[in-house]
Amino acid sequence: MPERICVVTEKNCSDKYGSDKRSFGRYENVSAVMRPMLNFAVGPVMSTDIVKEIGSLDVPYFRTSEFSALMLQNEEIMLDLSYAPAGSRVAFMTSSGTGAMEASVLNTLTERDRVLLVNGGGFGARFAEILSLHGVPFEEIRPASEGLGISEADLAPFDGKSFTAFVVNLHETSTGVLYDLSIIGDFCRRNRLFLIVDAISSFLADEIHMDDAGIDVLITGSQKALALPPGASIIVLSPDALERVGASKRKCMYLDLKTALKDGERGQTPFTPAVGTLVQMNARLNEIRNAGGAVSEIRITAARAAYFRARIKDLPFEMFSKSPSNAVTSLEVKTENAHAIFETMKDEYGIYICPNGGELRDRVFRVGHIGNLSFENYDTLISAFRDMQKRGLI
Amino acid sequence: MPERICVVTEKNCSDKYGSDKRSFGRYENVSAVMRPMLNFAVGPVMSTDIVKEIGSLDVPYFRTSEFSALMLQNEEIMLDLSYAPAGSRVAFMTSSGTGAMEASVLNTLTERDRVLLVNGGGFGARFAEILSLHGVPFEEIRPASEGLGISEADLAPFDGKSFTAFVVNLHETSTGVLYDLSIIGDFCRRNRLFLIVDAISSFLADEIHMDDAGIDVLITGSQKALALPPGASIIVLSPDALERVGASKRKCMYLDLKTALKDGERGQTPFTPAVGTLVQMNARLNEIRNAGGAVSEIRITAARAAYFRARIKDLPFEMFSKSPSNAVTSLEVKTENAHAIFETMKDEYGIYICPNGGELRDRVFRVGHIGNLSFENYDTLISAFRDMQKRGLI
Repeated sequence: MPERICVVTEKNCSDKYGSDKRSFGRYENVSAVMRPMLNFAVGPVMSTDIVKEIGSLDVPYFRTSEFSALMLQNEEIMLDLSYAPAGSRVAFMTSSGTGAMEASVLNTLTERDRVLLVNGGGFGARFAEILSLHGVPFEEIRPASEGLGISEADLAPFDGKSFTAFVVNLHETSTGVLYDLSIIGDFCRRNRLFLIVDAISSFLADEIHMDDAGIDVLITGSQKALALPPGASIIVLSPDALERVGASKRKCMYLDLKTALKDGERGQTPFTPAVGTLVQMNARLNEIRNAGGAVSEIRITAARAAYFRARIKDLPFEMFSKSPSNAVTSLEVKTENAHAIFETMKDEYGIYICPNGGELRDRVFRVGHIGNLSFENYDTLISAFRDMQKRGLI
Repeated sequence: MPERICVVTEKNCSDKYGSDKRSFGRYENVSAVMRPMLNFAVGPVMSTDIVKEIGSLDVPYFRTSEFSALMLQNEEIMLDLSYAPAGSRVAFMTSSGTGAMEASVLNTLTERDRVLLVNGGGFGARFAEILSLHGVPFEEIRPASEGLGISEADLAPFDGKSFTAFVVNLHETSTGVLYDLSIIGDFCRRNRLFLIVDAISSFLADEIHMDDAGIDVLITGSQKALALPPGASIIVLSPDALERVGASKRKCMYLDLKTALKDGERGQTPFTPAVGTLVQMNARLNEIRNAGGAVSEIRITAARAAYFRARIKDLPFEMFSKSPSNAVTSLEVKTENAHAIFETMKDEYGIYICPNGGELRDRVFRVGHIGNLSFENYDTLISAFRDMQKRGLI
């Protein structure tokens, strides 16, 4: 076996954090999980320094005017970055993205709706499960074939029918397929559909303009392009969405958006939120805004994706998604050992790529482009792929 | 106005973290929220060094055998520390304590139950709201008067009736009242009641022995005695509780315990959890176990409470709770300015005490004894109280 390629950059593995010197070295499980790694997963991702600096400090008490001011600014910047229509609001939830998906359904749809759902993978299937569970009638559109997006032709049969709402995971993270927001937006506008967009892994990676696309509910999570620890999710609601929330009957206290929005008016939350993550969010949102906003962030992410994709053409992988998001490159391996590649990368090269579950487990792995990643990091990853190729492992 | 007392210990305000040197100084809102403070709130609280060290690092990818091993150990230590009966399991939720309260109700109670609920404050009222929302029939017991616990006489009228379950916030955090677990446990055993105990702020602060007390569901949160960032909650379930979960009908995907427990068998969660907090939890649980376990942790917390209570006898405060938890001392001020005292402490002394909301806002404030607090920290707090007294502010 060749010598292990050292992929740990000085930044990740300075004296301060050198694994042998970490004070949690005596805790075996922590030590194994926290060893310095280069992370190309699609969440959690690598954070910028300011986020980690805040993480190194005690979490403050939060029923204060100072925390309220910070939360009000979080809302203001989120509205900016999502190009929300005037009068929109933001709800900050202490949950995974799935919690926010379910909250959106519970608070804006009812059994009187008739939903058109794009189901092209694991997260589309999750939305189907949520709609079923809560008795919201829906029909599914499935992409014409694996790895494909949604075309106008796919939508045509549903034109002029009696649907009331459209639900889509804009980027089906499980397959790396990005659906065409302008086609969906046009269809919804033409058919006057209420539009819920799960943009959990697409926000700040792909162009999303809530107002232009007519999006009513936009969902994202802390651990994707925001590059924060997981545990917080964000729901941006248009005036139409706020009207639906206002008219909704409460079905779950924890996922209730009415109280979240009400308390949010003064920069607070109904229950103790992930305070630390929300403080980190403020730093990160300011960092993004100061660096040029959504446009710049998307440009950087797209550049990372292009850099990586241009340099793997001679590797034995095929682009799995024919309509890729900038957030991730999903790659099909002909050797049926995608999961083994993930394991070897982790154990022998100190690199996380992102494995797939279910049917795609051995066929597809993913390489993320969100988080604090440099072009050099991709050079390191590609060197590792080439080394594995030399070893006959791919 | 006298000079502000510097309460910031070297530990909190070293060169590394000195406020002027922090790199988020340019972000006004973060800076205001993160200035060095001594924190006696009841969550978030001050953390130990190892927790903050992990917080200073990138959050790792988690669909790995290493993270699974860590989670399985989290479960094992939680079962130990709560003295759970053989065959118990633990569900780790990405939510506040309220999310775990609602999950417990949704997954173990139905409209066919008849619940006896202790409602002696804000959190008892929250349980009442959750039970109502989900159509679970209940009757309320209220303590005989403000600040009092529950006596055998209070329970006597409910003996031998057709109740099926008992629900209690063991420590009603809003008032600082700790209910007598042995009285409740005896009552439940005698009446064969399923017992749900919210021990969010009481776990590791007061003696709780699941098996001895016959507790079926024990709830706690990350930001109390575990002294981690908020955002994760923990539900320990007895074999009887597991049976109820198994027989329950799914009502909410995000709060579903069946899938959480199923995935937990291999150390995973159905949705992306608060990975960073769960890694910190592992370090902290090991730290507690190595230091002597629940007994030691409770002893330290009790000692802090006793130290503080013994030294404030000549201050113009009265113990509000006649049955105090070790987790917090709730103090009634005769001057009706409890909230103003909180504000002054925060703004002029760099100290968080814990304010009350609602009716008690101006009458009561609280001083916490959980988290990484030393006796010297209490000396500092008491000096600040005396200084405010000299200034005529209390």
